[in-house]
Amino acid sequence: MQQTRISLAHGNGGRLMRELIEELFARHLANPELNLQADAAPLPLGGGELLFTTDGFIVQPLEFPGGDIGSLAIHGTCNDLAVAGAKPEYLALNVFLEEGMAIEQLERLMGSLARTARECEVSVVAGDTKVLPHGEGSGLYLATTGIGIRLPGPPLGMNRIRPGDHLVVSGPVGDHGTAVMLAREQFGLRGDLRSDAASVLPLTRAALAFEGLRFMRDPTRGGLATVCHEIGRETGLDIRLQETRIPVRDPVNAVCEILGYDPLFLACEGRVVAVVAPEQSETLLRRWRSLPQGEEAAIIGEMVTGKGRLLLQTKLGGERLLDELEEDPLPRIC
Amino acid sequence: MQQTRISLAHGNGGRLMRELIEELFARHLANPELNLQADAAPLPLGGGELLFTTDGFIVQPLEFPGGDIGSLAIHGTCNDLAVAGAKPEYLALNVFLEEGMAIEQLERLMGSLARTARECEVSVVAGDTKVLPHGEGSGLYLATTGIGIRLPGPPLGMNRIRPGDHLVVSGPVGDHGTAVMLAREQFGLRGDLRSDAASVLPLTRAALAFEGLRFMRDPTRGGLATVCHEIGRETGLDIRLQETRIPVRDPVNAVCEILGYDPLFLACEGRVVAVVAPEQSETLLRRWRSLPQGEEAAIIGEMVTGKGRLLLQTKLGGERLLDELEEDPLPRIC
Repeated sequence: MQQTRISLAHGNGGRLMRELIEELFARHLANPELNLQADAAPLPLGGGELLFTTDGFIVQPLEFPGGDIGSLAIHGTCNDLAVAGAKPEYLALNVFLEEGMAIEQLERLMGSLARTARECEVSVVAGDTKVLPHGEGSGLYLATTGIGIRLPGPPLGMNRIRPGDHLVVSGPVGDHGTAVMLAREQFGLRGDLRSDAASVLPLTRAALAFEGLRFMRDPTRGGLATVCHEIGRETGLDIRLQETRIPVRDPVNAVCEILGYDPLFLACEGRVVAVVAPEQSETLLRRWRSLPQGEEAAIIGEMVTGKGRLLLQTKLGGERLLDELEEDPLPRIC
Repeated sequence: MQQTRISLAHGNGGRLMRELIEELFARHLANPELNLQADAAPLPLGGGELLFTTDGFIVQPLEFPGGDIGSLAIHGTCNDLAVAGAKPEYLALNVFLEEGMAIEQLERLMGSLARTARECEVSVVAGDTKVLPHGEGSGLYLATTGIGIRLPGPPLGMNRIRPGDHLVVSGPVGDHGTAVMLAREQFGLRGDLRSDAASVLPLTRAALAFEGLRFMRDPTRGGLATVCHEIGRETGLDIRLQETRIPVRDPVNAVCEILGYDPLFLACEGRVVAVVAPEQSETLLRRWRSLPQGEEAAIIGEMVTGKGRLLLQTKLGGERLLDELEEDPLPRIC
C-alpha cells in the first residue's frame, strides 16, 4: 500500500478500499475459506450447506426516506446471503452506541430493525452492545453477521461467467444513495425519493430456478459500476453496458447532475445484478418483472472477450471507459 | 427504562446495561433462540451442534501489556464459545477504522489478530470494513462473530446450578482491567502487570470431562462479581464468596486501592468461572492447576439457598453484600 494513513476513500468500495483489503487484511488472514470475491463464505459444517457473511453500517443520517440504519442492517446482511444463493436464517447484532444518544430514537431504530427481521424471517439470536464516549460514534453504528442455508440452484461464482453472458439488473439504480444524500441537510436539496432498501430474496429465489444463472450480487457500496469492475477484474472479460438500458429514475439523474455524481456508482440496497447465459436472459427478465421487486428490471449489458474493462455505450452512440472509484463520492450511505 | 439518554454506564456490564438489554433490545428482538443469559446461541442447524456468538471491542489504548485490540477480538469471541462448551471454528470480522489511522499500526494490530486466530485454530472467513470520519472511532473498533461446534460434555446452563455447588475460578482476577488502566497515561501510574488475555479453551475442554459441571463463564466486562450477579439473579440462589480465597495479584490490589476500584468488578480476558457439584470441585481444581492456564485456580465460594444475593465473607470474618455495578468504573477496557 502506498498510503501511510487511512482516508475516507478506504471505505468507499473503490480502488483504495480494495487494496486495503487485498494487501493488508487478506495478507494477514489468508485461509482456504476466505474468498474476497464472495458475498458469503461457505462453511463445511452440517453438510456444507451453510453460508456466513457480515456487514457494518455507519449511515448518516440514521433515518432517511424509505429506511433507517436498523432496517438497513437487516437487509444488507440478508441480501448478501441471498445473492450467494442462500436463505438467511440467523443473525448476530453488534451495537456501538454513543453516550448521550436519545433512548427514544434507539427504541425507534431497534423497532425498525426487529420489524425488518420479522419480514425477512430471520432471528437475531446473539448480540453485544458497547457504549462510546460522547463525540465518537455519530449516535449509532451497527454490524450484523448472518448465517444462511444454501437453496437449491445452479453453482454460482464469477468463475462461471462466460463471454456472451448477459447482465440483468432488477430495478433502477442509485435510489438509496440519492435518498440518503437528500436526507442530509448539508446539501440544501429536497425531493421525494425513497431508498430502495428491501429484501432481494424473492428475486434471488426466482433467479435460482435458471440453470444458466452464473452469478448474482447486490450493488451496494460503490454501486453498479463497482460490481462490474469486480466482475471484470476477476474474469478478465470486458463488460459492455448500454447506458440507455440502465434504469435510473429522473430525480436520481437530476440530483446527480447538480452534485456531480454518477448514479452508476451510487449504492442500491434492494437491487440485484445477475449474470446469466444469453439464451435465458429474456426469460429471467420476464420472471423478475412479474415480481413487485422487479417490475423495472432490465437487460443492461453483456460480457465480451477483452481485458477486464468496463465500457459504457453512451446515449450518443460512443463508448466510454468507466474507471474504478478512487475518490469518495458519498461516504456513509450504507 | 428510566433514562432518556445513553450514558457510559449503559456499557459497563452492570445494572443499567442489563436493563437496556432486557427492556429495549430483547423486547424488540424476542425469539425462541435469543437467550440473554447465554454466552452463545445454539443453532438448530447441522444436527443442532452449532453455537453462535458475537462481541464488540472498543478498548483504549489499542495496545497494552499482554495484548491489543486484535488479540482481544479473537480471544473474546472464542472464549464465549469455549465457556458455552464449544470449540471455536469460524469467525467473521467487522472493522470500523478512523480516517487518519496510521496504516503501520493497523498492520501491527491485524498481524496480532491473525496470529491469535492461528493459535486458537479459528479461521476468519468473512469480513467487512467501514471508515469513520476523523474524530470518531478512536482509531479502531472491532466486532467478531463466531461459530463453534459443541464438544462432548454434560449439558450446561444456569438452570442446572443447585444449592451446595462450588464456584471455581481458573486464575487471578482483574489483571486485564488493571493492565489496560495502567497503559493509559491519564492515571500517571506505572507497573509491570500484563493482561491475562488468552484462550480459555484448554480449561473449558478439561472441565467438560466432569459430569458435575453445571455452568461456565468468562468474567469479562463487569468482572467476577458481575458473573455472580447474573448467576444469582437467574437461579434465585445466594452466592457466598470467600474473599481470602479469591486470587488477586498484589499489584492489582495496590492499583485498585489507589484508584478506588474493586478488583472483583474488573475484567479478565483469560479466566473461567465454573460452577460444579461440590464432590467434584477438588478434582476439577487439581485438573485445572495441572494446566499452564490454571496454575493459580481456586475454589472461591458456594451456592446457598437464598434470594439471589452476592455475599462476600471478608478477610476480617464479616459478611458484605456486593451490589450490582451501577456507575462506570472503567469504560473501554474490552
